[in-house]
Amino acid sequence: MQRIGIIMAGGSGERFWPVSRKHRPKQLLKLTSPDETMLGESVSRLAPLIPPEHVYVVTGEHLVEPIREAGVGLPEGNVIAEPAKRNTAGALAYAAAHAMAAYNDDGSGLTMAVVTADHLIGNPSRFRATVETALEQAETRDALVTLGVVPARPETGYGYICAVAPLDEGADIPAYEVAEFLEKPDEERARQFVESGSYYWNSGMFFWKISAFLAELEHARPHLAEATRTMADAMAKGDDALVRRTFEALEDISIDYALMEQAREVIMVRADFPWDDVGAWTALDRTQPKDEQGNVAAGDPVLADTRNSIVFNDAGAGKMAVGVVGMDDVIVVATEDAVLVMPKDRAQDVRKVVQALKDRQAPQR
Amino acid sequence: MQRIGIIMAGGSGERFWPVSRKHRPKQLLKLTSPDETMLGESVSRLAPLIPPEHVYVVTGEHLVEPIREAGVGLPEGNVIAEPAKRNTAGALAYAAAHAMAAYNDDGSGLTMAVVTADHLIGNPSRFRATVETALEQAETRDALVTLGVVPARPETGYGYICAVAPLDEGADIPAYEVAEFLEKPDEERARQFVESGSYYWNSGMFFWKISAFLAELEHARPHLAEATRTMADAMAKGDDALVRRTFEALEDISIDYALMEQAREVIMVRADFPWDDVGAWTALDRTQPKDEQGNVAAGDPVLADTRNSIVFNDAGAGKMAVGVVGMDDVIVVATEDAVLVMPKDRAQDVRKVVQALKDRQAPQR
Repeated sequence: MQRIGIIMAGGSGERFWPVSRKHRPKQLLKLTSPDETMLGESVSRLAPLIPPEHVYVVTGEHLVEPIREAGVGLPEGNVIAEPAKRNTAGALAYAAAHAMAAYNDDGSGLTMAVVTADHLIGNPSRFRATVETALEQAETRDALVTLGVVPARPETGYGYICAVAPLDEGADIPAYEVAEFLEKPDEERARQFVESGSYYWNSGMFFWKISAFLAELEHARPHLAEATRTMADAMAKGDDALVRRTFEALEDISIDYALMEQAREVIMVRADFPWDDVGAWTALDRTQPKDEQGNVAAGDPVLADTRNSIVFNDAGAGKMAVGVVGMDDVIVVATEDAVLVMPKDRAQDVRKVVQALKDRQAPQR
Repeated sequence: MQRIGIIMAGGSGERFWPVSRKHRPKQLLKLTSPDETMLGESVSRLAPLIPPEHVYVVTGEHLVEPIREAGVGLPEGNVIAEPAKRNTAGALAYAAAHAMAAYNDDGSGLTMAVVTADHLIGNPSRFRATVETALEQAETRDALVTLGVVPARPETGYGYICAVAPLDEGADIPAYEVAEFLEKPDEERARQFVESGSYYWNSGMFFWKISAFLAELEHARPHLAEATRTMADAMAKGDDALVRRTFEALEDISIDYALMEQAREVIMVRADFPWDDVGAWTALDRTQPKDEQGNVAAGDPVLADTRNSIVFNDAGAGKMAVGVVGMDDVIVVATEDAVLVMPKDRAQDVRKVVQALKDRQAPQR
């Protein structure tokens, strides 16, 4: 069985404006490590289990060069561009087809580990043990496998997975039959979820034999299974036009909605490593060390009488002097050509600025 | 009688960091007009009364080039550099000596109008009428004359002048004998000052015949009178070394303390034009137009749900995108290489940032 890693990295990353931009999305930022991009961390984290030559990044065409330039530790040919944006279902069908063509396999000899590049994962060795368990489950049971993260708080921003009975009582890293996938809850429900102990955060990571993926697709979205096989054949023959035509005809739909929620058998492996979706600037509060005043600071800003704030000087102190005086609970982000200031509790509203700048037709902001 | 204008422009302007810097102090900023530097405005405002060829800027050596480059509308030779920093007493002694040498005059044929370049003055024609009155008072009475601004509010940041009996009952622009100069008051006293109607803001503008200036100096600070004459002679002879040596030996003292508070006769002319010392970023609230949410904005920032704030994008929207979301009562200033964020009520504390940056030995910040 050949195991391959698939890293989905097509996000646009507006929530980290002004550091994230169209050509520098979140996964190419150093938000979780001072030294490595999130995508680079994702490759490194997986490497002891799946060596980089078998790891593929699926992304948009405009990000192929930026990713190659970022030096994320992959062979150049392993950064593959979707011909269009067709959400996660399209991206994974494309990745599966690419693997079948590249390894000249009908899908029965390939296991895919689909991991993310825009989440924080603490404890990489525990992560790998969990992934190893998930891969074994996928390979032995011919099922779709996902990771369910033990929730650390009643988060209303994540989807949840309900999983009750363990398949393997007493295992260090247990697997469960998935009872249900649930959309983002309100606060009351989120609290109930966490208290019940049977609900987990939907991590967006998936593990399956390509043959099992295709079999479940046949059931849930037959045209998507067919399109995957068509693309695999076309890729093997080098018929790029057919690949593109087939891909562009796909619907824009998430893999959760297209497949996971419809699949006959989905197994969840319990993930107890620290995990965060790093969904907005406030995520740095949960993921980065703080000074004595509760501030998270990058790029050496001057902070005077400032508390519980996030001050991110992306340009660095040599190029940009950032001074914050007498502020509490704010986010200040400075790059060489942009500045963002907002209270922490408005972190999601960075989109308002991005939209306003788009409305002005400021290119590339 | 030859009238000359003297504009003191030696300030360091830390309170407007990061827009003001060592080589670009407040008087070279466009804080009160979108088109003209404050120094340029000062020259233009005076021009109908005293033409630019008779107006001199006294400044530090490091500011001569920046002022010439800023194009403030003066002949190049009229930007004169003090050999060292010796406060306003030194600057005015130097300016008087320079005038005596330049006009080959013993002081009895020259009247100086000493005006500022770092204050906002509304209603320029009323300003000129007031200056004309002050010059006439100086020339007819051989006295030191100052302008006292009718206080608009109980400001604790300004010095006050107490003036009770008008010299010329019923004049449109009356003159008074000065009873007392007063330091910055506390809030209670400031309120009493404003209510009494006999207290005025000390504007830092002075008018005198150089002979009267020297005569009062003989009385209050004889060595300063002597040094002024020595420098005038040395300048006439081109003995720069003697000028420098004499100047450097002067004490570092303000003209208020050295002369005005000690002088035998000081006349105050009542100034009823709008005036503001533009002492900190919050001054823009008093001097600039606001949007419907009470914001003062420059450089086209994106403001969303932001109220009563001052957002100054010095780099301009083409070079720097500034976005502020959900903030009230803050100051956000961005330049190409620095960012400042603070609540309005901490505007004076910008010095903390400047000091911290100096402590890091960041050059020229």
